[in-house]
Amino acid sequence: MARMVVIYKTPKDPKAFDEHYYGVHIPLAKQLPGLRRYTVSKGAVTTMASAKDTYLVGTLEFESMAAIREAFMSELGRACAEDRRILAADEDVEMYLFDSEDV
Amino acid sequence: MARMVVIYKTPKDPKAFDEHYYGVHIPLAKQLPGLRRYTVSKGAVTTMASAKDTYLVGTLEFESMAAIREAFMSELGRACAEDRRILAADEDVEMYLFDSEDV
Repeated sequence: MARMVVIYKTPKDPKAFDEHYYGVHIPLAKQLPGLRRYTVSKGAVTTMASAKDTYLVGTLEFESMAAIREAFMSELGRACAEDRRILAADEDVEMYLFDSEDV
Repeated sequence: MARMVVIYKTPKDPKAFDEHYYGVHIPLAKQLPGLRRYTVSKGAVTTMASAKDTYLVGTLEFESMAAIREAFMSELGRACAEDRRILAADEDVEMYLFDSEDV
């Protein structure tokens, strides 16, 4: 299993962010080829240690890192990346992609 | 479902980190009351946008934020937090805790 974790800082206009995220970004990203599960934080995100100022965490699950790469090389993947840039500038979002195993 | 995502920067001594993480921290954290699933990144963590210098991502799943709070107020929870500080100083780790829903 591989995960893509996307961490958004608090936007200037949370209402506009929510409208775009739930109304445009999720419906788009849910069409990504190979996407197996998409979860979104609900309510406040508590941060500890050096994590700061977080509004929302989205997690997309795929079979493998290869599947993630394939998804984002597709036309839909490029559209998702472009839409994410409308939603939040690079400095307002952190993305982590990794294969993952149960321990 | 609620998640605790723990993101570790690259340690000075990765071999010593791995020995402690896999040999001590995981066996300890797996005893946390209410823990339903524990996954760890496998291999390199790819970072994008403003995310930088990441070595490992651990994800602990519980039923709810209330269950996470309860787990970390237990004696074992305090031992886990203490062990995490041996593993990595606050400035070398980010922690995000949130309720989560499928979309």
